[in-house]
Amino acid sequence: MIAISDRVRFVETDLMGVVHHANYLRWFEMGRVAYLRAAGVELNELMAAGYVFPITEVQCKYKNSAKFDDEFEIQTTMTDFSKAKMAFSYAVVRKNDGLVLAVGKTQNVFTNMAGKITRLTDEYYNKIDSLYGQERSGTTK
Amino acid sequence: MIAISDRVRFVETDLMGVVHHANYLRWFEMGRVAYLRAAGVELNELMAAGYVFPITEVQCKYKNSAKFDDEFEIQTTMTDFSKAKMAFSYAVVRKNDGLVLAVGKTQNVFTNMAGKITRLTDEYYNKIDSLYGQERSGTTK
Amino acid sequence: MIAISDRVRFVETDLMGVVHHANYLRWFEMGRVAYLRAAGVELNELMAAGYVFPITEVQCKYKNSAKFDDEFEIQTTMTDFSKAKMAFSYAVVRKNDGLVLAVGKTQNVFTNMAGKITRLTDEYYNKIDSLYGQERSGTTK
Amino acid sequence: MIAISDRVRFVETDLMGVVHHANYLRWFEMGRVAYLRAAGVELNELMAAGYVFPITEVQCKYKNSAKFDDEFEIQTTMTDFSKAKMAFSYAVVRKNDGLVLAVGKTQNVFTNMAGKITRLTDEYYNKIDSLYGQERSGTTK
Repeated sequence: MIAISDRVRFVETDLMGVVHHANYLRWFEMGRVAYLRAAGVELNELMAAGYVFPITEVQCKYKNSAKFDDEFEIQTTMTDFSKAKMAFSYAVVRKNDGLVLAVGKTQNVFTNMAGKITRLTDEYYNKIDSLYGQERSGTTK
Repeated sequence: MIAISDRVRFVETDLMGVVHHANYLRWFEMGRVAYLRAAGVELNELMAAGYVFPITEVQCKYKNSAKFDDEFEIQTTMTDFSKAKMAFSYAVVRKNDGLVLAVGKTQNVFTNMAGKITRLTDEYYNKIDSLYGQERSGTTK
Repeated sequence: MIAISDRVRFVETDLMGVVHHANYLRWFEMGRVAYLRAAGVELNELMAAGYVFPITEVQCKYKNSAKFDDEFEIQTTMTDFSKAKMAFSYAVVRKNDGLVLAVGKTQNVFTNMAGKITRLTDEYYNKIDSLYGQERSGTTK
Repeated sequence: MIAISDRVRFVETDLMGVVHHANYLRWFEMGRVAYLRAAGVELNELMAAGYVFPITEVQCKYKNSAKFDDEFEIQTTMTDFSKAKMAFSYAVVRKNDGLVLAVGKTQNVFTNMAGKITRLTDEYYNKIDSLYGQERSGTTK
């Protein structure tokens, strides 16, 4: 599991006084970017190599409301991986007390710029699979 | 099923050249608002009466990319309803050719301003249930 | 002046209970797109022809708060135009009573995909200049 | 000048491949929040005390495009302050080379929940004025 921290922005709230639910998808995305970076893969580099990685499915369960200025952690875990697709699960947790704000999951495929499903080269595959392997064997925290 | 139409905003795209996936949750929300309006219930009125309606779960499956300036229809169908909660399903469909861009569903509860689960009064319940009944009996288009 | 109408989305509000001020820039953008469309120029066509049109300056004065579900009109007027740049002014007006919510202005240049300043071809220039000319002579409403 | 750092989110880009210009207003807001925090004033506390602080004017000049994943600094300087209003200027600077991405300014007033202009109590005024005084005398970095 790879964790990053952030703080709720004012603009992320809505008139119910709490974070608008669509923002969690943006936070999951930040978690994915951080996960791949931890594996040594930069999204800018992947895109320069001709890959795009459209989301095919997302799910989010909202447990507790996040409020403006809350510090939170996005915890990202890879749950499935092949040269053609990735799946992640996420937990968003309030920092000061560990309260779970939301949990979710995403699936994405890899395509080329024309939208055709494609497969990662060994170079990228091996980097990501190495971190995924550490996850499954419990050697990341 | 209640349908509304809109057009993809430039700001809704991302650097993959298509609509960012989080925007579909905003579109589903517009669909819910329109559904309740069709039932004779304005969200502003509900809020003035002390109700809030937090989303507890959302799911979205992305079928085809929406692009800037695409005209699309948000089709909203109620799938479950009680005085304490609502569930909807959605389809986002490209107008010019009927291509399905995404499908999804949401669940929400009704709470008071303090976040405690509450129940709709008969007045609101009956209005919404009337439209929901028409849906189930197939008398809406 | 070219006008389009829309309605405040729930997600556009913030915890002060009104529309978050950054959304007006998105609305101005919708106004610009509509203006160019009225001139016979589609942004997708411009981009396919290799043009991008980065904003170089924006200003907005907020007069009255917009609220969720308010119907509003975005009124867009071209104030300067050459083959290398455009300037617009905007008013966002509440529909039911004409209350001015905000006024603003933007400037943008035309560049190629590499970010180098470029000039519109006569084809695009003439279409836009024709609408701009009607504005100055007072023959648009 | 109070500086905070962040990194461009994927969702903040648009189909021109760079950060959408409306995001800078969100970043300015984060700068204001950080400025007030540095002065010992939390916005949540101000709101609990009955204050809101609507923006009355914003201006932004865009100098260079920010790209996905760029690390940037938001540099916020108070330029005017009274019990009834605040003005700030901002620079958004790319971290790796100091390139200025945008500069801007905002003005806001203080109102009560009903939207009526109000004045800060001495407690809040003095905290903010103390940091503002340090700025003017050049004792912040």
